Amino acid sequence: MIESARVKSRDCSCESCVCQKPVDAKTGFEVSDEFERFNQKYDMFNRAVWDDTVRSERSQKFFESYFTDLAEFRKVEGFQHRDYALRNAAWYIADFTADLLEISGDRKEGFLDTYTMFREGATRKIEGSAEENTAELKRAGKFLGADAIGVCDYDERWVYTHNYSRQKLTDKPMDLPEGLSSVVVIVNEMHHQTIKTVPSALSGAATGQGYSRDIIAVLSITQYIRNLGYRAVASLNDTALSIPLAVQAGLGQYGRHGLLITPEFGPRVRIAKVFTDLPLNANEPIDFGVTETCNICRRCSVACPVKAIPFDEPAFINDNISHIKGVRKWTIDAKKCFKFWANQGTDCSICIRVCPYNKDFRVAFNRLLRWMLSNRWRRLALWLDSKLKYGQRRTAGWWWRQPSA
Amino acid sequence: MIESARVKSRDCSCESCVCQKPVDAKTGFEVSDEFERFNQKYDMFNRAVWDDTVRSERSQKFFESYFTDLAEFRKVEGFQHRDYALRNAAWYIADFTADLLEISGDRKEGFLDTYTMFREGATRKIEGSAEENTAELKRAGKFLGADAIGVCDYDERWVYTHNYSRQKLTDKPMDLPEGLSSVVVIVNEMHHQTIKTVPSALSGAATGQGYSRDIIAVLSITQYIRNLGYRAVASLNDTALSIPLAVQAGLGQYGRHGLLITPEFGPRVRIAKVFTDLPLNANEPIDFGVTETCNICRRCSVACPVKAIPFDEPAFINDNISHIKGVRKWTIDAKKCFKFWANQGTDCSICIRVCPYNKDFRVAFNRLLRWMLSNRWRRLALWLDSKLKYGQRRTAGWWWRQPSA
Repeated sequence: MIESARVKSRDCSCESCVCQKPVDAKTGFEVSDEFERFNQKYDMFNRAVWDDTVRSERSQKFFESYFTDLAEFRKVEGFQHRDYALRNAAWYIADFTADLLEISGDRKEGFLDTYTMFREGATRKIEGSAEENTAELKRAGKFLGADAIGVCDYDERWVYTHNYSRQKLTDKPMDLPEGLSSVVVIVNEMHHQTIKTVPSALSGAATGQGYSRDIIAVLSITQYIRNLGYRAVASLNDTALSIPLAVQAGLGQYGRHGLLITPEFGPRVRIAKVFTDLPLNANEPIDFGVTETCNICRRCSVACPVKAIPFDEPAFINDNISHIKGVRKWTIDAKKCFKFWANQGTDCSICIRVCPYNKDFRVAFNRLLRWMLSNRWRRLALWLDSKLKYGQRRTAGWWWRQPSA
Repeated sequence: MIESARVKSRDCSCESCVCQKPVDAKTGFEVSDEFERFNQKYDMFNRAVWDDTVRSERSQKFFESYFTDLAEFRKVEGFQHRDYALRNAAWYIADFTADLLEISGDRKEGFLDTYTMFREGATRKIEGSAEENTAELKRAGKFLGADAIGVCDYDERWVYTHNYSRQKLTDKPMDLPEGLSSVVVIVNEMHHQTIKTVPSALSGAATGQGYSRDIIAVLSITQYIRNLGYRAVASLNDTALSIPLAVQAGLGQYGRHGLLITPEFGPRVRIAKVFTDLPLNANEPIDFGVTETCNICRRCSVACPVKAIPFDEPAFINDNISHIKGVRKWTIDAKKCFKFWANQGTDCSICIRVCPYNKDFRVAFNRLLRWMLSNRWRRLALWLDSKLKYGQRRTAGWWWRQPSA
């Protein structure tokens, strides 16, 4: 646990942020004075555009495979015509919204820029207390398609210093307006059964479908807040790191594989967020034992084919441009991870598949295992998870053959 | 039951259709030689644009209320700022996709025109039998967001003769390509709890949300078929009558209130469809006793505030421009119905709320009632439905006050 005093960093590149905040004591992120906000130019997807140590013929083919007319189907199960057809259809909404202004406005919305396609909101503000607003927002948010929803205070530390333009091959200033005091964070579940088939192009359909559901929800919630007369900016992977905001909004804890682990869906989620000035009350971060489980589990570190997930303790990684500086945490090797994606021609979620929190918690026995993972029965729960072969891979054909009922 | 002989009508305005088909014996639609295909110019939403007997100051205000900055919020529960904010946010996807090409292309996609925003599909066709294609399409369709999915053969009788241009205030030729042999029909559930609050602007959120979910699914399924190398045209309320196609695709039966009644969700659904040349096997129409229930029930006819739903037997209505000619069926008075919407400033679903098939069939007791409605226990089931006050109205405040869990 770190001191909860608010300390202005020496070297911090931003004007207004403080590098350490009281909430860190509850989220488990230790932030040092070396902290620097992240520039999206350095994420692996953008490095695959401008950095010759990442870009390759395979990485180009990887991106092209999302355009079905350019994809190369294989004979091996999980990478056939039907698998790519479904994966790329599942990505439809994310691609469509991202492509709308890519040429005309140099915006790849949801991935490099916030979303802008909204109607005029109300000309007057709704009358309501922060408590009423928060309760109604959560009710509306679930109605509009969020599987879970939380609120945290705006925290500039997790906002990128720059977005990136793939047209101009350079970073560009962040355009998030001033004065947005809260962040509404939502998660949507990724499809459980197709994730069981990872690695496969079919399991990539779960990624696309998770994004599509997330996007619909976050766009609709943003329009809802605008309809209440307040400002709201919708964001997916652009603009800010989603995971620390989700943890601060009480939606889950941070796992060894670098993913958010939620009580409802484990790590099998996609995250989106809305920056807003609607008066809202923040959630408290939650603790259901994830850190202690990850401390002894390492199932993801072992299963990762390229050993991109650390076996060690959380650490500061201050010498890698793709990693945020000055935050002590488990950090995956993004370069190794992405190279595996490029080589196999689709994204990988093996770390999600094998995670002991990747279960269907509508099943009572799985809720029992989750409870055991939160207390002294943890090791027994992990042993049972292994014995019962929860993380085992299924074939794509197994999924396609099931009746659709 | 009508003769199953294929008879070319005397007066039919189309070149190729036959007015009676064998499938009619299974769907219960009796088609006469007076049959004429419908021109979308004559539906109530388009008549509210060009027909002075429908257009009024109230109808203008009704349409404007979907633009939140023009909406007039009231103090009465269900019509307050939050209710309109949620309703109009729930319509976000439908509005956004409809508006994209309205100015530049004179297309209101999903309502007056088919959808066109797709990526290139595969350059080669998938190899598969009609049986394999059908099984995989249904599996993919549910994955991509359809709550239920069926297939029928292309039937030109239900395709409009013309779409309508609200820009040019005139009808325009139908642009559906030739040679699309099958129709994939999907339904998505509308939200059960908010429908209980009808009449209210809040219940209109269920309409918008049902459309939004339907649109995501139908666009993604269309992209999936294109990714298989075949042609696919996505349609919502434009281009063809959805209900007879849904009935022919085995998704449900036709009810007294003029709506599709499905076994899974009763009448609480939105329908969309994809015209395609992917080789597919059609479903058989289903019969779970709806016609016999509607024959004796009349709950919707009684509850309708403007008595727009018939109390009588199915009939031919050949003297009203808003009704299809030459089909014997229950037909609602669309003018009375729409006038009520315009007067209250939002759409109405009272007939859905009070329908004895409007239940949550995940509950075992409700499945028992549905079974009773299919056999000699029908009258007892209707009596129980009434005694247990299933169709009763709840207040919008009741819905907003519930915890969001």
